[in-house]
Amino acid sequence: ELGVCYYPEQWPRAKWEEDARRMVELGLAWVRIGEFAWAHIEPRPGEFHWKSMDEAVDVLGKAGLKVILGTPTAAPPKWLVDRHPDILPVDVKGVVRKFGARRHYCFSSRRYRIEAARIVEAMAARYGANPFVHAWQTDNEYGDHDTIHSYSDEARRAFREWLAARYGTIEALNQAWGTSFWAMHYNGFDEIDLPNNLVEEPSPTHLVDYMRFSSDQVKSFNKAQVDIIRRHSPGRPVTHNFMSQNTDFNHYKVGEDIDVASWDVYPMGGLLNGRLSAEDKARYLRVGDPDQTAFNHDLYRAVGRGRVWVMEQQPGPVNWAAHNQAPADGMVRLWTWLAYAHGVDMVSYFRWRQAPFAQEQFHAGLLLPDSETDQGYLEVAQVIEEMKRIPRGEAREKAKVAIVLDYESRFATRALPQGRGYAGAAIALDWYSAVARLGVDVDIIGQHSDLAGYALVLAPDLVIVDPDFVARLKASDAKILFGPRSGSKTRDMHIPENLPPRPLCDLIDLRVTRVESLPDFHDERVLHGNSSYPVGTWRETVCTGETVLATFEGAYRNGSPALVGNEKARYLATLPQGEFLLKLIGEALAWAGVETLPDLGDLRVARRGRLHFAFNYGPAPAAVPAKPGATFLVGESLLAPADVAIWTVD
Amino acid sequence: ELGVCYYPEQWPRAKWEEDARRMVELGLAWVRIGEFAWAHIEPRPGEFHWKSMDEAVDVLGKAGLKVILGTPTAAPPKWLVDRHPDILPVDVKGVVRKFGARRHYCFSSRRYRIEAARIVEAMAARYGANPFVHAWQTDNEYGDHDTIHSYSDEARRAFREWLAARYGTIEALNQAWGTSFWAMHYNGFDEIDLPNNLVEEPSPTHLVDYMRFSSDQVKSFNKAQVDIIRRHSPGRPVTHNFMSQNTDFNHYKVGEDIDVASWDVYPMGGLLNGRLSAEDKARYLRVGDPDQTAFNHDLYRAVGRGRVWVMEQQPGPVNWAAHNQAPADGMVRLWTWLAYAHGVDMVSYFRWRQAPFAQEQFHAGLLLPDSETDQGYLEVAQVIEEMKRIPRGEAREKAKVAIVLDYESRFATRALPQGRGYAGAAIALDWYSAVARLGVDVDIIGQHSDLAGYALVLAPDLVIVDPDFVARLKASDAKILFGPRSGSKTRDMHIPENLPPRPLCDLIDLRVTRVESLPDFHDERVLHGNSSYPVGTWRETVCTGETVLATFEGAYRNGSPALVGNEKARYLATLPQGEFLLKLIGEALAWAGVETLPDLGDLRVARRGRLHFAFNYGPAPAAVPAKPGATFLVGESLLAPADVAIWTVD
Amino acid sequence: ELGVCYYPEQWPRAKWEEDARRMVELGLAWVRIGEFAWAHIEPRPGEFHWKSMDEAVDVLGKAGLKVILGTPTAAPPKWLVDRHPDILPVDVKGVVRKFGARRHYCFSSRRYRIEAARIVEAMAARYGANPFVHAWQTDNEYGDHDTIHSYSDEARRAFREWLAARYGTIEALNQAWGTSFWAMHYNGFDEIDLPNNLVEEPSPTHLVDYMRFSSDQVKSFNKAQVDIIRRHSPGRPVTHNFMSQNTDFNHYKVGEDIDVASWDVYPMGGLLNGRLSAEDKARYLRVGDPDQTAFNHDLYRAVGRGRVWVMEQQPGPVNWAAHNQAPADGMVRLWTWLAYAHGVDMVSYFRWRQAPFAQEQFHAGLLLPDSETDQGYLEVAQVIEEMKRIPRGEAREKAKVAIVLDYESRFATRALPQGRGYAGAAIALDWYSAVARLGVDVDIIGQHSDLAGYALVLAPDLVIVDPDFVARLKASDAKILFGPRSGSKTRDMHIPENLPPRPLCDLIDLRVTRVESLPDFHDERVLHGNSSYPVGTWRETVCTGETVLATFEGAYRNGSPALVGNEKARYLATLPQGEFLLKLIGEALAWAGVETLPDLGDLRVARRGRLHFAFNYGPAPAAVPAKPGATFLVGESLLAPADVAIWTVD
Ligand SMILES: [Zn+2]
Ligand SMILES: [Zn+2]
Ligand SMILES: [Zn+2]
Repeated sequence: ELGVCYYPEQWPRAKWEEDARRMVELGLAWVRIGEFAWAHIEPRPGEFHWKSMDEAVDVLGKAGLKVILGTPTAAPPKWLVDRHPDILPVDVKGVVRKFGARRHYCFSSRRYRIEAARIVEAMAARYGANPFVHAWQTDNEYGDHDTIHSYSDEARRAFREWLAARYGTIEALNQAWGTSFWAMHYNGFDEIDLPNNLVEEPSPTHLVDYMRFSSDQVKSFNKAQVDIIRRHSPGRPVTHNFMSQNTDFNHYKVGEDIDVASWDVYPMGGLLNGRLSAEDKARYLRVGDPDQTAFNHDLYRAVGRGRVWVMEQQPGPVNWAAHNQAPADGMVRLWTWLAYAHGVDMVSYFRWRQAPFAQEQFHAGLLLPDSETDQGYLEVAQVIEEMKRIPRGEAREKAKVAIVLDYESRFATRALPQGRGYAGAAIALDWYSAVARLGVDVDIIGQHSDLAGYALVLAPDLVIVDPDFVARLKASDAKILFGPRSGSKTRDMHIPENLPPRPLCDLIDLRVTRVESLPDFHDERVLHGNSSYPVGTWRETVCTGETVLATFEGAYRNGSPALVGNEKARYLATLPQGEFLLKLIGEALAWAGVETLPDLGDLRVARRGRLHFAFNYGPAPAAVPAKPGATFLVGESLLAPADVAIWTVD
Repeated sequence: ELGVCYYPEQWPRAKWEEDARRMVELGLAWVRIGEFAWAHIEPRPGEFHWKSMDEAVDVLGKAGLKVILGTPTAAPPKWLVDRHPDILPVDVKGVVRKFGARRHYCFSSRRYRIEAARIVEAMAARYGANPFVHAWQTDNEYGDHDTIHSYSDEARRAFREWLAARYGTIEALNQAWGTSFWAMHYNGFDEIDLPNNLVEEPSPTHLVDYMRFSSDQVKSFNKAQVDIIRRHSPGRPVTHNFMSQNTDFNHYKVGEDIDVASWDVYPMGGLLNGRLSAEDKARYLRVGDPDQTAFNHDLYRAVGRGRVWVMEQQPGPVNWAAHNQAPADGMVRLWTWLAYAHGVDMVSYFRWRQAPFAQEQFHAGLLLPDSETDQGYLEVAQVIEEMKRIPRGEAREKAKVAIVLDYESRFATRALPQGRGYAGAAIALDWYSAVARLGVDVDIIGQHSDLAGYALVLAPDLVIVDPDFVARLKASDAKILFGPRSGSKTRDMHIPENLPPRPLCDLIDLRVTRVESLPDFHDERVLHGNSSYPVGTWRETVCTGETVLATFEGAYRNGSPALVGNEKARYLATLPQGEFLLKLIGEALAWAGVETLPDLGDLRVARRGRLHFAFNYGPAPAAVPAKPGATFLVGESLLAPADVAIWTVD
Repeated sequence: ELGVCYYPEQWPRAKWEEDARRMVELGLAWVRIGEFAWAHIEPRPGEFHWKSMDEAVDVLGKAGLKVILGTPTAAPPKWLVDRHPDILPVDVKGVVRKFGARRHYCFSSRRYRIEAARIVEAMAARYGANPFVHAWQTDNEYGDHDTIHSYSDEARRAFREWLAARYGTIEALNQAWGTSFWAMHYNGFDEIDLPNNLVEEPSPTHLVDYMRFSSDQVKSFNKAQVDIIRRHSPGRPVTHNFMSQNTDFNHYKVGEDIDVASWDVYPMGGLLNGRLSAEDKARYLRVGDPDQTAFNHDLYRAVGRGRVWVMEQQPGPVNWAAHNQAPADGMVRLWTWLAYAHGVDMVSYFRWRQAPFAQEQFHAGLLLPDSETDQGYLEVAQVIEEMKRIPRGEAREKAKVAIVLDYESRFATRALPQGRGYAGAAIALDWYSAVARLGVDVDIIGQHSDLAGYALVLAPDLVIVDPDFVARLKASDAKILFGPRSGSKTRDMHIPENLPPRPLCDLIDLRVTRVESLPDFHDERVLHGNSSYPVGTWRETVCTGETVLATFEGAYRNGSPALVGNEKARYLATLPQGEFLLKLIGEALAWAGVETLPDLGDLRVARRGRLHFAFNYGPAPAAVPAKPGATFLVGESLLAPADVAIWTVD
């Protein structure tokens, strides 16, 4: 089903009926409202003006739309922060971040917790049983604009409490943080400070604990809202709209408390800020990274424990990136079908009509500011037409291949990158991309996820490994490919006692005795079979009893193992890229008995039940890898650029 | 006439007579003094030591020099800022900017307004009727070192007052700023804060209003001084020395209150900080951008409503740029003649003698620190010799071509650039350069300027358009070429109601339905005639009833109009550069019936009355485009590098 | 002799005996402990826990090791900074730098002076006469993490006092700082502020005085500790471990107060942060800059007035650079022999065992975290074996060539760089490298150093020259090659009265009338003999009565002198690089009668008494320039990459 984001408070009352009518006419079923309406519904302390919101819900609902109501806590009103300045977040330099945009609150502010509960309670009480309200969204885009990490006095107080709860005694903390180093010893939790503005880097455990604490603050902030909503509005699903692969907090943990995960899809900015080379960014300029969006669908499917929506789908060019190119014509349709193929059950476009004022006036909508239809509108209409040809009820199946994304491991490498530019997110996406180019569906999993059914588990950057996860891997049928740094840190951010990757010793016989991070201008190489490949900026020296499958080449430790393994597990001592990565992933898939297609190049495929999908991200027409006898429901076997094909095979 | 900047307070009393004598001997007529003398004349609160300044004026005047007296407000003494710390400006991060250099004051400090008035009153009272004082300069280089924008408490207070005056009611402000977006609603002007240290970007209207406010503060600060001076020193022109194309405040508005605009000419640093490619910077390293200085002469001629001086002319290498190359020998002469050709009536060199101490000791003077003559001195002597051959009384005529420079539009694109690197200043200079390479004189105009006589008006970046300006354009004989973004924002920084460029709809039938900013690594192309050209980083999709004169090429919206127009107006939907820009400007000039020369390459020409000038910025000798029968007063028809020719044609 | 850095407080008591035994077994003689132990020995105010440290000294001493005891002042405990927050340093932006790493103190804090004296007194009293304590180290790495310059209230107070002592009267300061410029006049020392957060650059004299003050604070802080130690522990040498060529303070002055200079050798990070091009960094990636380490040995030999140790020798890959490549196998051995060849008498490796926790867990040790031997251990064992073949008692002789490194000159160009990227350190190292490639040993000297015996003195960046040094140069037998900017500033940071390089006028007849700094993209050239060479980013115009040995080429002042000289002194008006620099240095050596070898390329040589050393930094084997009849004690005449040869010639 499709929907749209709408801001009644930004438009004259007289336009609402017409807007609602046109939404329904287009074929939309859902409408999200309310997530920035606090100042609108409570313009002065305690003075609630419900009338406008009441009418908006009524008008939209009566037109036939299902309302998703957002809690407005992402933007507290000015009068509130003026009364309680300790609501405001503080940046890493120690400067208070002021009112005037959004997300101007600190998750640790006790006062803001009270105020947020008050407004959510008021909204939930008023609309919880409203027949037009079919779902709730908490807040908006946790983590946007670096707002997970605040360095306020309230954050310091809460961090101390969190540490006391985690460690029990200060000596336990001293042990974990390694404070015998550099005389950093603490005599009590009230001596602990936040890890900003230090003379040099803090203990990595100090940093990672601060990231864990900040992550937990998001979870408890969100859960408080969910609890209130559930009390007043039972039976309506609660969601939160996450952002494209933000790793400032543990999304799985927030996901535990909601019913559906949703996320906001902006592939154009994602491309420019992303992992690709300038050459590839130019190639995919108006279609986006062919794998980034799919990766996130798969990730948030895991966060939502199977249920995932798109709450904001880019409908045209936007405003917030360094440059803001337009999507190629056809991409709004393509992204909608891509979402569906990856198991997404609702796609909501952001936004109905382009706003002619304020910060996002360069952000396209389905309608232009003058209410004429924009390109996105036409493509949505096409999708809605096409949907009629698609059988309902097809469900995305569990994949054969899983990639582990572990938030604590991301915290770990952020605290202790060791080499500038080491980015777990880019590495994981590169691995995902290699699998996708071979036509294989992927699940993203956490260490808590069920492993049943996976033939291959990829762990590109699993730095901190749970013993339980290792045990379950061992007990599973899956083969596993580990990237470098796997198992290299304990939960306390120490090197494991018998060297990395000690926690993996039940799976593979290996000791990493040396790690190197290397600058870009250096050409490190690996010999695999008879071919020599350049590799990236990470190299480990390993001692192993396992079979050596590839070796480093060159003057320095020539012949040192670069890939080792046994029948269950393989370990990479470097970061292969490009063709070499594609080759290694292909070999791993073959090893695990997963069927692959020849390299798809710019094409991508996906399956949802009996439905097969293909998407063309390239500049030229491409032949779809449909088996003979395929029945095309949408498109055909030769796929134009930015085009979609959907078929079934009997 | 020529002059020089002199600092008697920096030299022993014994040197003054000799210095004055040598100035006169060289042929200088003017001398500027006093603009950093506050601590010298009032070393302690209320304790005035006039003797030294009295003598300086006397010595210089009696030697035959006309004194320009600067008010010393650009550098309040330490005792003053220690007594009143709220004089100090605050930077965008919220850090107080301390004493120890110059411009350490906030334009909004009420206390500083009082103190500035006090010292100006004292100086004007003492020297207003002095027969040797022939002109006044207010303060020094408003805007240097980012000092227009202060984030002090005083600035916040004044900003609130300014907003209350502008909007009358808070609801009018809420409407203009679009505060229904992101719950930014205000209940009163006392809730408004300055737009710094926010979580994300403020409303663009908030930002632009802050820039307008800051600009108005400069105007009122300056006017207060002018009023005092006029009271005590009637009949003497008052000027201010502006900087090369600073756009932090509206110079036309400050220009309204003074008698002559002057500006400070430093082409070497200007080149390095400027618009050109590294390759072109290398080509012009020691001669400077061939158009930047001329552009500024033309701009400040407009700011001074016809009267323009150069208050500081670079005499050799200086100290403040990242690198400080020397001008080629001959350039000081060239720049002096260039100024004259563009209508400048007085050129004053900065400075008489290089200071061997303090911040600018690497800044050349006409004399070396040991009082020997430096290269600049010799070139000034040559100019003075050559001037004798030039008939007096020739006036710069109004040009046939005008380029619109609108400060509010610059504020607008700074608040809402939409694409990193969008720079109105560079675009306008590129357009100017194309006209100049075709041998055509240009006027810079504002929207308030008289349009009579213009055959072609170029509006490269006129984002906010006055309806009155459009009406006058329509009524004029001028043809107009608009750049992209023209008319794209209302005065309140909204998108116009029926889409951009709505305010231009009386001139051209056009709707911009989509804008894109594009990264440098992308190759966008336009087809014009049979040729394909690369274009820059801005692209618009337009719907138009006008003739399409060029179209975009490529996979994305192939054939979409890139240049459209009718008999009166043309609109560019992109930013052409290099050869393509030169071609389009050439066609526009032909369309408007303006006579052009073949591409001048590194040569530039100008006319002042009957006098024709040519300047060679290239590395090789070049033939001057003088008509047969030309009489050369300076130079000859083959022009050496860095050389000047002046001729008349009967 | 060899040693190692050890942290008993970081390891279980049970491991100490075993560790000590293995150190001795390896052949180590020294062990450094204690320099971060404050919180360990005084965990709460006044509560001393000596037992652990007592035992550590005892265990190590009884095993046969000589203990170097570090004072723990580089890391005051948390309880101390909580009680006295004015101990904390303040960064240049005015932000307090917090506890949580190390070096979190301001040298000007009166409270910290008291506390530092208290803890040093306590340690010195307890261990001063301990038979196992053979030497002391004060603090740790003065200057690491930009900690010389603090902008605290305490620093401001102390700076005012320092200025009052230096200038006596405020008018003397006004004169020196040139406060007649920009009305910066001061009425008293209590008006002076620190030179941070100004609107623009402060007076360069203000800046240089602040650097001198900060440098003097280090000297007095250090001397206070030395005095206490000497009182309690007479006869034991006191050292401090300096860092690779930090120029934030005058090391010669701190060196005056200690018995041995020591420094910390980390060539891998040094390469990446250093002077070389990316191409050369790739070439030398795992061996380091072939000259940087040698340069520093020679520098600290001067700082230690002949006595120099290596306190921390990199034993493998580390953690703190942007990238952290491993040294090639063999380099730990090579660096050890290199140190010996350059006169170093003790090399201590950092650290015994890699720490599995806290900030430096990626920093290798001689042992891996699991106590297995790492590569460094094996190489140390090899060195110890080889040492047995080397005759004792050979001393490094005074070189024939000296390079002047003057800290005040470095302060001067930092305060007034005039061209971005001007870096005295890189220039001096380039000159050193040219001498080294010609096989010639070098001494680094200060202006105070004895000049006897030098045939050639190189002064690449001697901006501020002492008249006494000039007189001694003149009286010496040395020929001198001056770089540009030599003698260009007085002690007060003024241009000398009769233009630079006035203070050198007794040596060379020269006036610099113009200086230029040039951007990288410009190609400035010099004609020398019949060859044309590119030169760097500095060019001066000189008037001279001396012989012109090379001239600038090109359109700008073609033929202007680039190198001039007489029989005693030569002056370069530009910064030659690469082959041209090698050629000029070679000619200077020939001029001075110093015997050279043909260009050694990647090879380097050194002599210590009768011992000749060669080191191969290249990727290919190379022939050692040993004379016929050489007796090889280590290695042989064809030297493998990363290999060392030692021979004698009878
Ligand atoms: Zn954002
Ligand atoms: Zn400046
Ligand atoms: Zn450091």
